[in-house]
Amino acid sequence: MKKIGIILAGCGNRDGAEIREAVFTLLALDKLGEKLGAETIIMAPNLNQHHVVSHLTGKDLPETRNILEESARIARGKIQDITQVRPETLDGLILPGGYGVAKNLCSFAFDGSKASVLPAIKSMITKIHEQKKPIGAICIAPAIMALLFGHEHVQITLGADKETAQEIEKTGARHVVCAVDQICVDQALKIVTTPAYMYSEAKLHEMYLGIEKCVAQVLAWA
Amino acid sequence: MKKIGIILAGCGNRDGAEIREAVFTLLALDKLGEKLGAETIIMAPNLNQHHVVSHLTGKDLPETRNILEESARIARGKIQDITQVRPETLDGLILPGGYGVAKNLCSFAFDGSKASVLPAIKSMITKIHEQKKPIGAICIAPAIMALLFGHEHVQITLGADKETAQEIEKTGARHVVCAVDQICVDQALKIVTTPAYMYSEAKLHEMYLGIEKCVAQVLAWA
Repeated sequence: MKKIGIILAGCGNRDGAEIREAVFTLLALDKLGEKLGAETIIMAPNLNQHHVVSHLTGKDLPETRNILEESARIARGKIQDITQVRPETLDGLILPGGYGVAKNLCSFAFDGSKASVLPAIKSMITKIHEQKKPIGAICIAPAIMALLFGHEHVQITLGADKETAQEIEKTGARHVVCAVDQICVDQALKIVTTPAYMYSEAKLHEMYLGIEKCVAQVLAWA
Repeated sequence: MKKIGIILAGCGNRDGAEIREAVFTLLALDKLGEKLGAETIIMAPNLNQHHVVSHLTGKDLPETRNILEESARIARGKIQDITQVRPETLDGLILPGGYGVAKNLCSFAFDGSKASVLPAIKSMITKIHEQKKPIGAICIAPAIMALLFGHEHVQITLGADKETAQEIEKTGARHVVCAVDQICVDQALKIVTTPAYMYSEAKLHEMYLGIEKCVAQVLAWA
């Protein structure tokens, strides 16, 4: 039974994890995992979100929310503090997107290619990578792959967003344009990426296909 | 182009809409709607939730959250106050589940078969029904069908939960046991139901099949 870790960044595309991408990841893992044998370990940092945004108005709210506690809404309570998960117990890792990835898990939303990655996130991802286990990254989450593995010239996709691609290539990463229902595979580094809501008007069933392919690649490598 | 309304009850299974059921409804509408022609209109009441529950600990939190604002997380901001949506502009309605349905949209969690339904929800659903348009209800949402159409002896499913089924039959509704990947169809009343997380250990891809069948039936009638 392969154990696949999923890192969530909250609950909602504007300040946390992109809900639909996270749910599609879970659906694909459940569907493909039934045949291939896979268990899902959901985790998040036990820290406060960068901020809380009204998804109705787009405005900042004077509230404080915890990333782990909000991610637990998507996880239906079955979630662990990422610092309590030992990387050696996992066979692979998947990161759905959402602005929370670029605001809570790293500072890409503010600092671009100069961004830092949250220590607990950096530790988990680099240890998985050092063990030559696969990582899938969705939507904006490939930016973290570039921040951590730009020096290895990781090949990723962020869809067709030229500005973000140019910024991310400053890390040494190579950007590839990719359709929403497709994946970008870095075979050498065992890193697979899919654009999802980097196409803001993407059709859900096409996005699901891209995410299912991403999950399938992680399971094939795991 | 058929317009299908989706009513959300917040964001999270313990105090709002069940996130995965809501996302599966959107995925199925996008997938089937592409061939059949369907547009999704997401709506929620602009009222405070009954309460806010930590999905990490299960405990009540001393916070106030608005149903419409939290539902907007699932809707990515594309959502309307239900009182601003005219029922005559819709061709059908779907209600995903979650405890929010039984706590925010009606009082079923507290009052069982004697529960009242929130006026804005009652108004929308009864007007759609009077216009002989179809309604799909998922998980615990069929309880609202029983509360409103028990006098018409509506046939619904709440999975295999005997206690809930017995309570709901006091309204005059007829309960049918149904597997998670199946639907219960009341042809005469144009009401279709599927159990989803009424089976708390349900496999996601089987639950998706049930929800897709529910959406397909609504679109076939719409």
